[in-house]
Amino acid sequence: MSVALITGVNGFVGRLLAKSLSAHNRKIVGIDIQAKSVLPDIQYYKADICDIDIMADIFGKTQPQEIYHLAAVSSPSYFHTEPFNSFRINLMGSISLFEVMKKSACNSVMLAVGSAKQYQEPAGADPVTESGILNPSGYYGVSKYAVEMIGRYYVQQHNLDIRFTRSFNHTGPGQADNFVCSDWARQVALIASGMQKPEISVGNTKAAIDFTDARDVIEAYRLIVQNGRKGEAYNVCNGKGIDLKYILDYLTKKCPSKISICVKQEKFDVNAANAGLIGNYDKLHKETGWSPQIPIEKTLDDIYAWWINNLT
Amino acid sequence: MSVALITGVNGFVGRLLAKSLSAHNRKIVGIDIQAKSVLPDIQYYKADICDIDIMADIFGKTQPQEIYHLAAVSSPSYFHTEPFNSFRINLMGSISLFEVMKKSACNSVMLAVGSAKQYQEPAGADPVTESGILNPSGYYGVSKYAVEMIGRYYVQQHNLDIRFTRSFNHTGPGQADNFVCSDWARQVALIASGMQKPEISVGNTKAAIDFTDARDVIEAYRLIVQNGRKGEAYNVCNGKGIDLKYILDYLTKKCPSKISICVKQEKFDVNAANAGLIGNYDKLHKETGWSPQIPIEKTLDDIYAWWINNLT
Repeated sequence: MSVALITGVNGFVGRLLAKSLSAHNRKIVGIDIQAKSVLPDIQYYKADICDIDIMADIFGKTQPQEIYHLAAVSSPSYFHTEPFNSFRINLMGSISLFEVMKKSACNSVMLAVGSAKQYQEPAGADPVTESGILNPSGYYGVSKYAVEMIGRYYVQQHNLDIRFTRSFNHTGPGQADNFVCSDWARQVALIASGMQKPEISVGNTKAAIDFTDARDVIEAYRLIVQNGRKGEAYNVCNGKGIDLKYILDYLTKKCPSKISICVKQEKFDVNAANAGLIGNYDKLHKETGWSPQIPIEKTLDDIYAWWINNLT
Repeated sequence: MSVALITGVNGFVGRLLAKSLSAHNRKIVGIDIQAKSVLPDIQYYKADICDIDIMADIFGKTQPQEIYHLAAVSSPSYFHTEPFNSFRINLMGSISLFEVMKKSACNSVMLAVGSAKQYQEPAGADPVTESGILNPSGYYGVSKYAVEMIGRYYVQQHNLDIRFTRSFNHTGPGQADNFVCSDWARQVALIASGMQKPEISVGNTKAAIDFTDARDVIEAYRLIVQNGRKGEAYNVCNGKGIDLKYILDYLTKKCPSKISICVKQEKFDVNAANAGLIGNYDKLHKETGWSPQIPIEKTLDDIYAWWINNLT
C-alpha cells in the first residue's frame, strides 16, 4: 500500500482528497496546523510546514511515495492583513518540502497546488491554456507563481518529480462560507429554515466564473500524480464560465418564500475570485483522461443540502 | 541631506557604496548582521532583515529616501549547505522590506540588487540584454529571480518605486578571496612575499568572464536610483568577456619568480561564476549615462596592492 502525504489535510480539499485516496488504496499521512485531524482514520501530524527539521522527520518516518501539497494561505483577506506571514507560509512551506524531497531517498512524486490567479487578468477571448501569460495581480497569485518557478528549478536542477496545478475556483458541500456558492447556499438555507429574514446579501453577481466541483478537483489531483508528467503544469478547471446570476437564481428558488437581493460593496472582493478568467483543460484531459463530471446544479444541490444539515 | 539606507552595509559592495553615497551628500543608515559596523561614521543597526517588525522600526526612525538592498546570501557554497535558510534570507528579507516600504509614508526609492545568474545559460552569441530569457540554473539565481518577480508585483499593484539590477561579476580591492581575481591576487602576493611556495592553485582558467570593478558597480547603483525608472531592471556589467587566462598571466607576472599553475578540481565551482555569460549595458548607459570606467588592469593592480598590504 503506497503512502500519500497530504499537507493541509484538514482543509476543505484536503479532507475530500484524503477520503478519496484512502478509497484508492493509499495509506494517508496528513499534516495540518490544528491539534487534531478532522478525519479519524489517518496518521496525523500537527506541524508547521515551514519547519524543515520537522518535515524531514515526518518524511523519514512515513516515506511517502506521493505528496499532495495543499497547505497554503489562500484567503485574500488574511493575505491582506498578514502579507509577510502569508508569503512565508506559501514560499518557505513549499521550499521546505522541496528540500526534504531532495534529500529523501524515496523517489516521491509531489503535486504542488497552484492557482489560476497566476495568470494575467483579464485573459484573451479564449479560455486560457497553460501557455497563458503568468502575471498575477494579487498576493496569493504572486506567491503561487513564485512557488511554481522555484519548484521548476528543483525539477530541472535536482531532478525532483514535482507536478504543478493551476487550479481555478472550486466549490462543493462542506466549503466554508467565505466562498460565494457556499455563502449564498448557507444564507438561503438559513432563510428556508426561518433563521434569517428573506434577504440575501451578495457581492458581485455579474461575472461568469469557472467553477469546478471539488470532488472533480481531487480526482484531477489523483490522476495528475498517477498519469501526469514531471515538471508540467495543469489547469484544473471546468472550461466554461457559469454566471453568478444563474447560481443565485438556482439557489434562491430552493426557498418557497420570495428572497430579496441586497448588494453589499464589502462582499465584492471576497466573491470576485478570478472573475471572468475561464480555463482550458485540454492538456489535463489528454494526459490523464480527466474531465469534470459533476454539473453545477448537482454541486449547488449538495452544498445546499449540506448547509440544511449543518446550520447551527 | 537625504537618507540612504543600505542593507548588507558591512559587505564588500556595501562598504564601498556607503563611502561613495556619503561623499555624495547622503546620510548613511546601515544594516547588517554583525554586532558592529566596519565603517565608523554611519548610523548602524545590527538587525535581521527578515524581522519585519525591526525593519519597520528602523524605517520609522530613519525615514530613508533611498534604500539600497544589498543584503543576501550569494555564496554558492552557503546556498548549497543551507539552501532553506539562504532562500529565507533572500526571499523573506526582501519581502519584509517591500512590506515596510508599502506601509511607510516616505515615498522612497529602492534598488533591489539582482544577478546575472537570473539569465538562462548559455545565452546566445550576443551579450545578453534585459529581455534575455530568465531561467536560472542555480539556487542564488532562482532566489533573485523570485525576488524580482515579487518586487514587480509590489511595483504594479502597490505602486512602490523599486528598481532592479541584474549585476554581473564584480571584483576589486578588499573583496574576499573566495572570488577568483581576489583569490589569485592573494596567492601571488603570498608568493611574492615568500609566504607561499611558487605554486598557484586555480580552478577554471578557460572561460571569459564579464567582470566590472566594484567601484564602477556602486556608481551604477547610485545612478539607477538617481536617474533610473520605477520597475525597470538594469544589467550592471562590463559588456565584454575577459579571459581568465589573461587575468592569471597578468597577476603572475607581478612576481619575479616563476610560478607554476596547479589546477584543482574543487576550485571549479567557486570560480566558474557566470562563465561565458556576457552582458549588454546599453539600457543603463542610455538612461543614466553610466559606463564602466576602470580597466581590468587597474582593478587587478589595486587588488594585488590591497593584498600586499593585508597579508597576515
